[in-house]
Amino acid sequence: MKLQVYCELNYQVSPPATFILSILTLNGPKQNILSENLLLAPNLKAERLSSGNHNQQFIRLQVKEETYLNIAYQATVETLYEEVEHIKTIEPVWVAQMPASVLLYLLPSRYCQSDQLVRFAQHRFGRIDNDFSKVIAITDWIYKNVEYLSGSSNAQTSAYDTITQQAGVCRDFAHLGIALCRALTIPARYFTCYAYKLKPTDFHACFEAYIGGKWIVFDATRLAPLNGLVKIAHGRDATDVSVATSYGNISLNFMQVGCEALEEDFVPVYYDSSSQSGLSY
Amino acid sequence: MKLQVYCELNYQVSPPATFILSILTLNGPKQNILSENLLLAPNLKAERLSSGNHNQQFIRLQVKEETYLNIAYQATVETLYEEVEHIKTIEPVWVAQMPASVLLYLLPSRYCQSDQLVRFAQHRFGRIDNDFSKVIAITDWIYKNVEYLSGSSNAQTSAYDTITQQAGVCRDFAHLGIALCRALTIPARYFTCYAYKLKPTDFHACFEAYIGGKWIVFDATRLAPLNGLVKIAHGRDATDVSVATSYGNISLNFMQVGCEALEEDFVPVYYDSSSQSGLSY
Amino acid sequence: MKLQVYCELNYQVSPPATFILSILTLNGPKQNILSENLLLAPNLKAERLSSGNHNQQFIRLQVKEETYLNIAYQATVETLYEEVEHIKTIEPVWVAQMPASVLLYLLPSRYCQSDQLVRFAQHRFGRIDNDFSKVIAITDWIYKNVEYLSGSSNAQTSAYDTITQQAGVCRDFAHLGIALCRALTIPARYFTCYAYKLKPTDFHACFEAYIGGKWIVFDATRLAPLNGLVKIAHGRDATDVSVATSYGNISLNFMQVGCEALEEDFVPVYYDSSSQSGLSY
Amino acid sequence: MKLQVYCELNYQVSPPATFILSILTLNGPKQNILSENLLLAPNLKAERLSSGNHNQQFIRLQVKEETYLNIAYQATVETLYEEVEHIKTIEPVWVAQMPASVLLYLLPSRYCQSDQLVRFAQHRFGRIDNDFSKVIAITDWIYKNVEYLSGSSNAQTSAYDTITQQAGVCRDFAHLGIALCRALTIPARYFTCYAYKLKPTDFHACFEAYIGGKWIVFDATRLAPLNGLVKIAHGRDATDVSVATSYGNISLNFMQVGCEALEEDFVPVYYDSSSQSGLSY
Repeated sequence: MKLQVYCELNYQVSPPATFILSILTLNGPKQNILSENLLLAPNLKAERLSSGNHNQQFIRLQVKEETYLNIAYQATVETLYEEVEHIKTIEPVWVAQMPASVLLYLLPSRYCQSDQLVRFAQHRFGRIDNDFSKVIAITDWIYKNVEYLSGSSNAQTSAYDTITQQAGVCRDFAHLGIALCRALTIPARYFTCYAYKLKPTDFHACFEAYIGGKWIVFDATRLAPLNGLVKIAHGRDATDVSVATSYGNISLNFMQVGCEALEEDFVPVYYDSSSQSGLSY
Repeated sequence: MKLQVYCELNYQVSPPATFILSILTLNGPKQNILSENLLLAPNLKAERLSSGNHNQQFIRLQVKEETYLNIAYQATVETLYEEVEHIKTIEPVWVAQMPASVLLYLLPSRYCQSDQLVRFAQHRFGRIDNDFSKVIAITDWIYKNVEYLSGSSNAQTSAYDTITQQAGVCRDFAHLGIALCRALTIPARYFTCYAYKLKPTDFHACFEAYIGGKWIVFDATRLAPLNGLVKIAHGRDATDVSVATSYGNISLNFMQVGCEALEEDFVPVYYDSSSQSGLSY
Repeated sequence: MKLQVYCELNYQVSPPATFILSILTLNGPKQNILSENLLLAPNLKAERLSSGNHNQQFIRLQVKEETYLNIAYQATVETLYEEVEHIKTIEPVWVAQMPASVLLYLLPSRYCQSDQLVRFAQHRFGRIDNDFSKVIAITDWIYKNVEYLSGSSNAQTSAYDTITQQAGVCRDFAHLGIALCRALTIPARYFTCYAYKLKPTDFHACFEAYIGGKWIVFDATRLAPLNGLVKIAHGRDATDVSVATSYGNISLNFMQVGCEALEEDFVPVYYDSSSQSGLSY
Repeated sequence: MKLQVYCELNYQVSPPATFILSILTLNGPKQNILSENLLLAPNLKAERLSSGNHNQQFIRLQVKEETYLNIAYQATVETLYEEVEHIKTIEPVWVAQMPASVLLYLLPSRYCQSDQLVRFAQHRFGRIDNDFSKVIAITDWIYKNVEYLSGSSNAQTSAYDTITQQAGVCRDFAHLGIALCRALTIPARYFTCYAYKLKPTDFHACFEAYIGGKWIVFDATRLAPLNGLVKIAHGRDATDVSVATSYGNISLNFMQVGCEALEEDFVPVYYDSSSQSGLSY
């Protein structure tokens, strides 16, 4: 599927300041970047960084003068997500067989304190008989119990808060989903993306769970079709892949984000309890 | 310097269980393993895993039968730590110049919520004029204010708790040191090791701060000389490099750890406020 | 109903130390003390304190010498709890009509952060159609989701922890019940007691909710019949009525508690979802 | 000293709603209300409540119709605060001698988790040789380390947060002061007031510590002279005496508060480390 994504970020910056931006679409076997364009005003040098995973790249910018900084990015992308079929009966992967690079997604992280949610997760989801159904049950529980409410959470809000306070945004929904998966010994990671038909338009965050040897995408918010995502990056939680991490004195003036399909005939995909296949980006 | 290290861990295990152990000494340019021996009873297959950093290895064990599991490890190691001189006047490295692999150690993690300690860190240490002196001041503050007290903390205790409750063990001292460094935009990582002259003998944890382009070791507990360490592994915090992460039904029966010098003439090194050089492993 | 209660507390005390003990049975219209005996060794002066509520009394002891302090208390008590019938159809009492002395039990307290549980309580229990059924549903939820496990909580554990960590003792069960009631604008208070048929024998804690103008007793642990309680004291939460609050250097050597019926024909009362009456002490 | 105070609160209210307001000036031996006037529009019945302490009164309002509710209060008050002299050498009051009504102010409360700050308080303030100097040192520490910053805290923020995050408003400064006092076994309570020369004008919160048998007022914000306060109420913390506690669907439109001296020759009083007397309201 072909999609066009863009974002524009505008900051007021007092030097010295350094930005690490995670807005570039991932380039990999399941997602081809057909074209992309990054425009900075003023025309700073944009350094591309990758850490470990060479498909996902960050931009580092150094600002040495007082300025309004405008960052505009646009890309045309072909996504080739995989439909993993018969996912409820797929052979489970035990910890003993998981690749080393997957094991770290079993560990708790800043916003996903899975170590504190083990009882909760076991009580509520532990007896469900396959990993895909467990994660579907987790996302259903979050959807039904947590209110999507802008401004109800902040940069310190973690899964441990959200599970009780029951309000948040996509970031909080993803953190809670991840924490509950890890508490059930299902590896899970945070996933940022552009999302087609997301309303209101913004960056989106959902999560991936490692099921039957594949990373399957889930979204407890149900705010965007699962087959309209354009992946930016994944990581342990929002700390690893936040849209902008800045060091120095800056403030955001405005931000615009968009994602449009370049094809017709889009049939939105969401999971429900009868789903037999999962999507893997 | 040549040291001999060993540990013995004994568990009662009900299957199925998987262990990830972080007890092997690191093998790298500043630390040579001259000989090592790992003995498992019963004689399970020990799979060696490395994730990203090829020098540090984990052991994965799969236990399929009810058993007492005994893990005995011994190694003779030559450590070649570097004395980084004139460290107070060394050119600082800005975020804009840091290698991509270092940047992640600026981010908050499960036990090191640096995002919540920024004001505290800035108020107390922000005006000190070089990074080495800042970290020395941090470790001094921890040493003076936090009581080393076995049993005062648990697996959920984080830097956010320790800064207020002011009691903990080496793990908690390291987490607080790391969180305060990151809050000052100094990359910092958790470091596990065998430690010569540590009393009582145990595994030890300290931390490394990235100063002038090198990872310099610090220990807020002052329980072991900085030049008698044998590195096991480093990571974001204790989650990444805990001695044993287990999945399944297990209990620890006993544990022994040791570290002996194979040379005479050991002159213990500790930092104080007049120190002009730091140690890098 | 006549019951005999006793307790023995033994402390090692280094002076100066002051104890505030809450072990005396309450003397009031629904509970007559037929006889009681307090024996202190050494023979210190026991000062009786009451604060606000003159029926419930605390003992204050001042220890001026290094000693083993033994406190033995025994009482024979007649309880006259009231069965409040038709409690599901009783006229509700709005905040606008509540006595001033009841209003404070709507407020959050140290261990009952009802302000943080409003969404959770409203989502899960808000639509139930009468206050008694709401509180029954709360205690059922706690019983089913929280594991009674000695040692799983400590003196800092609050309702905000228990709702997620889902393990605790009678104190934690009561705190969570109270917090959820207050979050639904039902006044609730902590209640300490001796409890007939409690196993293992110990002091017990449950809670009272203000329904239809009466304080109705509830116990989410289901560990003791509701009609076999001998009230000691009530308060906002465990801080107000802890068995022993001590100032100074003391340690508990042992504690024994008992509660025996002096009549035969005891028919234990527990609530279930079909209950039509509540007990008020 | 004669002062005139006033406030105006304007709410949009959807029925049914009940308000508990704590805006009336306290009437007692050290503070005489010379005149007062409460004007409600629409003209609802204002019920005056007092709980325990008959000098401090709350207003309860029941709103049964959709309305804008305007509450205007004005009072002329004569304050007769006491200057407690030689307060650094005054005989201390041990827990064993404190009146029963004072003991509860030693206990932790919702926003003042003194049980978690004992080590911190003892390390930093424990060796100071008299209670007044201890509390002065506490307020100095708060003043120097915590930034007064509107919007930096919310209704959930407690002393445990403020001690680390180091930003807050008068309410947070008071909570932290109270928690540290209690952690040192000094009874302390929250105190709301109108404050002369407070900028910007607003309700104010400070705290009282029980020293030498008197409640001495302290203000870690240093935003208003200690001799220009007009007391509204005291309680364990902000939960007990919040300006408005509401049950139902309401929103605040605007609020105005004022406090003017009716005499000239006002000499502002603040404490410093050389102060020999404390003020008691």
